[in-house]
Amino acid sequence: MTSHSVETGGPTRQRLIDVAIELFQQHSVAGTSLQMISDELGLTKSAIYHHFRTRDELLSAVMEPVIAEVTALVEAAETHRTPHARADHMLVGYAGLAARNRALIPLLTGDPGVVELLRTRQEWRALVERQMRLFADVEPGLSGQVKAALVMSGIASAAGVDYGDVDDETLRDQLVAAGRRTLGLRGSRAGR
Amino acid sequence: MTSHSVETGGPTRQRLIDVAIELFQQHSVAGTSLQMISDELGLTKSAIYHHFRTRDELLSAVMEPVIAEVTALVEAAETHRTPHARADHMLVGYAGLAARNRALIPLLTGDPGVVELLRTRQEWRALVERQMRLFADVEPGLSGQVKAALVMSGIASAAGVDYGDVDDETLRDQLVAAGRRTLGLRGSRAGR
Repeated sequence: MTSHSVETGGPTRQRLIDVAIELFQQHSVAGTSLQMISDELGLTKSAIYHHFRTRDELLSAVMEPVIAEVTALVEAAETHRTPHARADHMLVGYAGLAARNRALIPLLTGDPGVVELLRTRQEWRALVERQMRLFADVEPGLSGQVKAALVMSGIASAAGVDYGDVDDETLRDQLVAAGRRTLGLRGSRAGR
Repeated sequence: MTSHSVETGGPTRQRLIDVAIELFQQHSVAGTSLQMISDELGLTKSAIYHHFRTRDELLSAVMEPVIAEVTALVEAAETHRTPHARADHMLVGYAGLAARNRALIPLLTGDPGVVELLRTRQEWRALVERQMRLFADVEPGLSGQVKAALVMSGIASAAGVDYGDVDDETLRDQLVAAGRRTLGLRGSRAGR
């Protein structure tokens, strides 16, 4: 926990991100200062500035790998022919992402600071809307929109619950089963 | 926006609570200080202290009416004979509560500060667990637990989404329909 490793770049950057995620979860994004993160790591504030100028820059770095994965999922899902197949592709991918990132995903969907950042970054907001549309298009009107919203945030939150010792694949399959029931999907079959 | 009304008690207390909810939504609980709340209302900090000594005391005052309603719902739901009837009673009541409090309920279920307070207050944590059990008992094992978690937080978040001009009853009915599908309930009938 010294500041010697700052010059090496990579490892400190990743440790900053890891500690930021922990503190964001405990105190929310707005309740976490760069000072708290540097204190936790025993770094000076200037050592943090070497990597991130603001908390939002750090938050962006936390979110980018997830955004990249959701982007790839949305693009792949949109290639299917039918609304059911598109929704099912998105659901299976999103449930897997949530099961593999049980601490991070609830933070990214529930924290007011993240929600605000998602709104202000045009391309991220557009991505969330595309994902929502993939779920909502299964059923027309308000009914489809409400079910889509329930699945989007329900999967994120349900992944963060402590069920005891449950591996990622088992949790993913349960989330997929629940999401299919909510959306009225009968499961994926090729070409549907 | 003066501090004259402080001596009268009631109205200022309610205005403090209303402004707190707004700021909690924008900045999260941890990102909102009593100072920010007093600035917003043009009150001195000592005027706030007249009503609430700490932010957690204010947060408790925000939560108490909702806690009281959930308590009444859980108790009424638990009187039914079958797991299906118990879950359906809880679902209809909870969806109605969420539809009538679209701004507050997402805050109470998503904000890390609230989640922390719910954990530390023994009687509130017990209440959340009783509500969760009412949903989870429809289906045994992990499968029922995951669906219960998805419905609990999914309904709260889905109520906060902007669907345009949708009245509370319509939204409640849509949330109930989605929740019933997720949990595998066929709708309420007397004596089930």
